[in-house]
Amino acid sequence: MPTGEAHIHKPFDDQLRILEDSVARMCGLTEAQLANALKALAERDSALAAQVAEGDGAVDALENAVTEEAILVLTLRAPVANDLRQVITALKVAADLERVADHAANTARRALVINQSAPVSPVRTLLRLGREVQGLLREALDSYLTGDAERALAVRARDVEVDELYSSLFREILTYMMEDPRTITLCSHLMFIAKNIERVGDHATNIAEMTYYLSTGHQLASPRPKHDVSSLEGAGPGQ
Amino acid sequence: MPTGEAHIHKPFDDQLRILEDSVARMCGLTEAQLANALKALAERDSALAAQVAEGDGAVDALENAVTEEAILVLTLRAPVANDLRQVITALKVAADLERVADHAANTARRALVINQSAPVSPVRTLLRLGREVQGLLREALDSYLTGDAERALAVRARDVEVDELYSSLFREILTYMMEDPRTITLCSHLMFIAKNIERVGDHATNIAEMTYYLSTGHQLASPRPKHDVSSLEGAGPGQ
Repeated sequence: MPTGEAHIHKPFDDQLRILEDSVARMCGLTEAQLANALKALAERDSALAAQVAEGDGAVDALENAVTEEAILVLTLRAPVANDLRQVITALKVAADLERVADHAANTARRALVINQSAPVSPVRTLLRLGREVQGLLREALDSYLTGDAERALAVRARDVEVDELYSSLFREILTYMMEDPRTITLCSHLMFIAKNIERVGDHATNIAEMTYYLSTGHQLASPRPKHDVSSLEGAGPGQ
Repeated sequence: MPTGEAHIHKPFDDQLRILEDSVARMCGLTEAQLANALKALAERDSALAAQVAEGDGAVDALENAVTEEAILVLTLRAPVANDLRQVITALKVAADLERVADHAANTARRALVINQSAPVSPVRTLLRLGREVQGLLREALDSYLTGDAERALAVRARDVEVDELYSSLFREILTYMMEDPRTITLCSHLMFIAKNIERVGDHATNIAEMTYYLSTGHQLASPRPKHDVSSLEGAGPGQ
């Protein structure tokens, strides 16, 4: 979140830095929550899953802290122009991170249930999707934290690949359920985990788009076409 | 969003009113999107469903307008204390509304697919859930627009009922799939619609909690326990 030019008012920088530090801490904590949720799923580690589920409150608390700090900056400094946009963007990024952490916690709670049954093969594809999205989120957050517009643009392009992988995973899960209806309940959790992870990709894209705007002052031409077609493709009348 | 006391600076009121009007318009449009998505599902009206799917862009545009107007108020007036919280809350409510509209659009897109197959019975329960959540959203938005803390409190209590209905609907859909695996794909859409609607209830609760805070200055004691247990209940190892 580089401010471009140094400020004359040192106290503003200090207060903005406190806000930025909180957002950066929130980035780190949210990435860790997602990584641990996926690890709990991969290694069938229920203790770790429970830890992620419980850890969600810490992310919520950090989002509240970001809001309070943003209000303090606005009250004491009344920033304008790019500084103001930076504060508003920090608030919006924090909101996206809070949702990402929600998705991680939901994934962890479902992992707790999944771990009670024998392993099923679509989990492998699910973990591949997870790794892709983890990489996407890391790129989005790094581009935000360093104010790198080019890197932010690349995130948007990569989210298309995530959607394609999600689409093929969705079909794989449906096929698995149809072939063995005893796995329907279990597979319904996999579906929702897949959806959770795909949504994390959307939040990463949001963050990348905000970063691009904040860095360049230009909105991206149009929102990336996103109609959740993936999950509809496998659902034609013939299936 | 009553401001409590009249402001000395008339121009602030004017600019805040423009912002509030945009949020109020966003409330109306979002409610209409949800109502039409549910109507399209109930009446198997694919033309209406397509209209809802296309209408999502208008809500997104309104959210951008709210952000721009909030930035303008902050830049020109540098509000503090309760006025500042009002502006920040407007931004947050707009973000919740944008998600609600996303859920409505996703519901509509799935209705387009569902309408291609013969009707299935869980849709009735789904529509009941939809009506409950519509009522909840209306209460949340009315309490926000009138600054009514007591009404906001009641919304939080009602969301618990929504979660219970969601839970029983989820079990109904699972049972339906197991009894007739040919409906798995179709039922997977019902599951995601149910999840969309249940999430709308969560956003209504968010808005109610923000309203309570804005009106009273007090945070609600603790976040309502919300662990998406509903969907996990039906998923014990024995099922």
